[in-house]
Amino acid sequence: MEIIEESPSSSKGESRWLQVARRRLPILEWARRYDRLAAVADLVAGVTLGLMLVPQSLAYASLAGVPLQYGLYSSYIGTILYVFLGTVKEVSIGPTSLMALLTLQTCRHLPLESVVLLTFLSGCIVLLMGVLRLGCLVQLISPSVTSGFTSATAVIIMASQVKGLLGLSFTAETLLENIQKIIAKRGDVRLGDCLLGLVCCTVLLLLRKLKDVKVSPKRPKLQKALWLISISRNALVVTVAAVFAYCTYNPNKLLVKLSGYVEPGLPSIALPPFSITSENHTIPFTEMVHELGSGLLMIPFVMVLANIAIAKAFSGGGRVDATQEMVTLGLCNVAGALLHAMPACGAFTRSAVSHSSGVRSPAAGLYSGIITLLALMFITPYFYFIPKACISSVLICAVVFMVDIDIVRKLWRSSKSELVVVVLTFVVAVALTVELAVLAGALANLAMLLRAIMMPPLNVYTVKSSRGAAAVWAPAALLVYVNAERAARRAAAAAAAAAAAAAAAAHAHAPLLLDGGRLALLDHCAAQILERLANKLKSNGQRLIIFNVSAEVEETLSTLQHVDKSAFRSRTASEALAAASEPRDPETGPLLPAGHDHA
Amino acid sequence: MEIIEESPSSSKGESRWLQVARRRLPILEWARRYDRLAAVADLVAGVTLGLMLVPQSLAYASLAGVPLQYGLYSSYIGTILYVFLGTVKEVSIGPTSLMALLTLQTCRHLPLESVVLLTFLSGCIVLLMGVLRLGCLVQLISPSVTSGFTSATAVIIMASQVKGLLGLSFTAETLLENIQKIIAKRGDVRLGDCLLGLVCCTVLLLLRKLKDVKVSPKRPKLQKALWLISISRNALVVTVAAVFAYCTYNPNKLLVKLSGYVEPGLPSIALPPFSITSENHTIPFTEMVHELGSGLLMIPFVMVLANIAIAKAFSGGGRVDATQEMVTLGLCNVAGALLHAMPACGAFTRSAVSHSSGVRSPAAGLYSGIITLLALMFITPYFYFIPKACISSVLICAVVFMVDIDIVRKLWRSSKSELVVVVLTFVVAVALTVELAVLAGALANLAMLLRAIMMPPLNVYTVKSSRGAAAVWAPAALLVYVNAERAARRAAAAAAAAAAAAAAAAHAHAPLLLDGGRLALLDHCAAQILERLANKLKSNGQRLIIFNVSAEVEETLSTLQHVDKSAFRSRTASEALAAASEPRDPETGPLLPAGHDHA
Repeated sequence: MEIIEESPSSSKGESRWLQVARRRLPILEWARRYDRLAAVADLVAGVTLGLMLVPQSLAYASLAGVPLQYGLYSSYIGTILYVFLGTVKEVSIGPTSLMALLTLQTCRHLPLESVVLLTFLSGCIVLLMGVLRLGCLVQLISPSVTSGFTSATAVIIMASQVKGLLGLSFTAETLLENIQKIIAKRGDVRLGDCLLGLVCCTVLLLLRKLKDVKVSPKRPKLQKALWLISISRNALVVTVAAVFAYCTYNPNKLLVKLSGYVEPGLPSIALPPFSITSENHTIPFTEMVHELGSGLLMIPFVMVLANIAIAKAFSGGGRVDATQEMVTLGLCNVAGALLHAMPACGAFTRSAVSHSSGVRSPAAGLYSGIITLLALMFITPYFYFIPKACISSVLICAVVFMVDIDIVRKLWRSSKSELVVVVLTFVVAVALTVELAVLAGALANLAMLLRAIMMPPLNVYTVKSSRGAAAVWAPAALLVYVNAERAARRAAAAAAAAAAAAAAAAHAHAPLLLDGGRLALLDHCAAQILERLANKLKSNGQRLIIFNVSAEVEETLSTLQHVDKSAFRSRTASEALAAASEPRDPETGPLLPAGHDHA
Repeated sequence: MEIIEESPSSSKGESRWLQVARRRLPILEWARRYDRLAAVADLVAGVTLGLMLVPQSLAYASLAGVPLQYGLYSSYIGTILYVFLGTVKEVSIGPTSLMALLTLQTCRHLPLESVVLLTFLSGCIVLLMGVLRLGCLVQLISPSVTSGFTSATAVIIMASQVKGLLGLSFTAETLLENIQKIIAKRGDVRLGDCLLGLVCCTVLLLLRKLKDVKVSPKRPKLQKALWLISISRNALVVTVAAVFAYCTYNPNKLLVKLSGYVEPGLPSIALPPFSITSENHTIPFTEMVHELGSGLLMIPFVMVLANIAIAKAFSGGGRVDATQEMVTLGLCNVAGALLHAMPACGAFTRSAVSHSSGVRSPAAGLYSGIITLLALMFITPYFYFIPKACISSVLICAVVFMVDIDIVRKLWRSSKSELVVVVLTFVVAVALTVELAVLAGALANLAMLLRAIMMPPLNVYTVKSSRGAAAVWAPAALLVYVNAERAARRAAAAAAAAAAAAAAAAHAHAPLLLDGGRLALLDHCAAQILERLANKLKSNGQRLIIFNVSAEVEETLSTLQHVDKSAFRSRTASEALAAASEPRDPETGPLLPAGHDHA
């Protein structure tokens, strides 16, 4: 066997600038492979999403406490920009329940201008995070956290949509609050909404199964038609429900609750308000920023977290270009702020709908954006007729399959500690907030990793040779500041025991041998601790012999003065004993010339 | 060579209960070795500390915004309890500058009762942390953080004492504020205080050197006398200065500023106030707790941090029983709250003075406690005369040698990244607060460790054999959720390159071999990623062969279905290729009987 090369570099012979362009404008990459089938799928998914995005935008704007049209302002610029810059086909940038809630909490007592400034500054911070390449932080969110977070988000969304199915109206933030209010308002349940919701849900779930129906291979067109109907089920159901509502419309007695009136017209393009002048006084920029407070850090952080979690969930284990996602998200919000938008990011709900609609590329966002634009400009009267129960059904049927119960059974058998992380993330998300859940899950994972590093197995054994006994200490993986002190203390105890055993057997010496073969990292602090250990052993008449170390570990150890370096390259304990037993120690005498040594 | 035993257990043949008692009541341990010399040293150190503790307690009480006697209430119970429970001889539990500052910030607008409740609840939280054995968190504070923190604390204390030397009076929290106010008040500098401070500092520094003076070996008594004078220099200087102040006392024109009047008398023992009834209304417990806010978490955390940092700094690299320290600290504060104390913990200043006074055991605290008690009961008039400039001199001379400049030179040569941590901790401590500095330093260390784990060297090479080519991937140390995805992606790229090379050389197969020899930890997430990698390779006609794995890693991998397990025990790449090339794959045919294989 022969080593022929080390880690191949991936040069493809194309210019570096083209590579950067492909990376920063992902449309250049996927547009080359874009075909008619993908375009049809994207059109269906984009229109479906657009029909969903409009009432959703209104709902989230209302939740955030801003005028309804602000939701639509936030939708179209993000979705259209994402076509050019986005990397994950399921993502559409727009208002989300999480953003709406955080915006409400941050700007509850502030003027409307502060919301737009918040959007602008959040975009700048996210952009900065992207430019500083903080995307590697994605790796800190483990699949267990993503799973718990995804399931919890689905549960929260479903709970929040039950009221739509029942024809109830109230605002509630948490799962518990939703349940309480549904019970409290059980007398107001509307039969029409319930029936429509039931029908919509049933049809949606049946249509979802349609694409799996096996048709004779002789009829490929029928198979394709079934697939098309299946993936466009959301659009179909919404359209049919709206037509039904339009036909049976009686303004005095509504059969079902409708989405309602939306103010038409495009917003003017303007710089975000850097100060507010009211009749009485001017609020300067610094005071506006000060009033936004911790929300200014929280909202960008949650934006990035949400988008990256979505990207991870829908990338199917593939690579997530977190830097590009952050730059895109930042630009979407900065541009959004010029159009009076509220903070926007990707939403799990919409991603799930896109996914279930069979989206093929980010181009779908173009159609969603156009629909939002059209909604603002022309077709507002028609969106008026989309029944609320229908929207709730689409949302519920989109997220119900995101609840991953199977992972509990799997992890129960393979890794109980990961199960704890999943459950912790889920419970915190459902009981408190989603961002706290992600934080708690990530910290729990980190703590488990740190614990494994802090408490490694000792791995000390005693070897006997003709010369005497020796304790061999083979630390695993890392010897760093969090575990070196403890490991050194236990190794010293083992060395003392070996010395006692050697003395009992009337042997002369019992050195402590440190086998660095499995040691990948040794930091400065651990090196100092080894130096102290060597000194301590020396005072007991023992020696610390380090052998079988890698080049990096050898470099860290090279600055030490009291550690015996003669056996660093020895591969086995026997070799190390032989290498270190040459009389180099001042205590045992001066170094003899080579000839003398063998005489 | 022969392995004769694994990790010796330390059974000493004494009952488990006695061991627990020794651990929880450390006085049982050190009292056995306690002799007359140690008792004299402790008496001197204890009295010195007592003379220092009294004016310090007053100063910190004044800084915390509570009546002066509250400082003394906080001193005596902690110091006396620590005699029985404490493990670090230099520590004395009492008010500190840090505690005083945090108490002020937490209780600035709250009634005096809230301070006592804060002490009580902080003690309970620290006690809980001790019982839950959260003491292992000590290991997260690296020596670099401790060094930066220690130096910064010394600088802050010195800066805060300059005003005493100059005879100025003002309150300032930060280094910068101290400098500004000294410059602003330069006209008020008092000659008497300056001269006294200069004399005190000079005498203290000279007396410090006295114990190093070489005396003829024939006169051991003179040598001992010099040592005694040297280590009791603080008590000597304080007494002489107080006598001088008493003799030259003129109430109309003070030569130097004095410590001033202290209200005598012991506090009554009472449960901490769980609610406050004023003339208008009653503030219930929940509201009191709510008003204490984040201080309720911050103060216990900083207490533990401070005590553990002091314990680490003065334990000389030895072991710190963090659990015991936390239980003791918690009990001291719970007991203190019964005596109207403000929050108390160990102080770097006092520890340095104890250390330089030659303290030999925690018994010194008994004398300090008695002096504080006496101060409260009887001798208040005499403490009145201790000049402030003298106290400042003692403080400054105690901490000046704690500033570790040498470490900068050392780390510049051996580890620049550790130097960054030291400088970061120091700068944050001096510019902002000490607790933020410890947090920042610990996080910087953790981030560095995490970075090393997240970005390990790839370590992939290609081997050629008669059978074809194979890529060998030998991940170092840890394959966990923070690095497995990236490593697997790069390994897959290497495998693809190897396959291309094999195809070019008309070889049949080019498997990816994973050498687990240096792998200490493989988590559930990494196992899943390996499974996906195996699937991906299989779709390209390649195989993933894992070999040379430890028992723990084998266990984690055992639940996987698509990973070839036949070579797990092989030690080399050749062995692994041979073990895995037996036709076990369904694609290459059914498993042949053993006889057939060799035919």
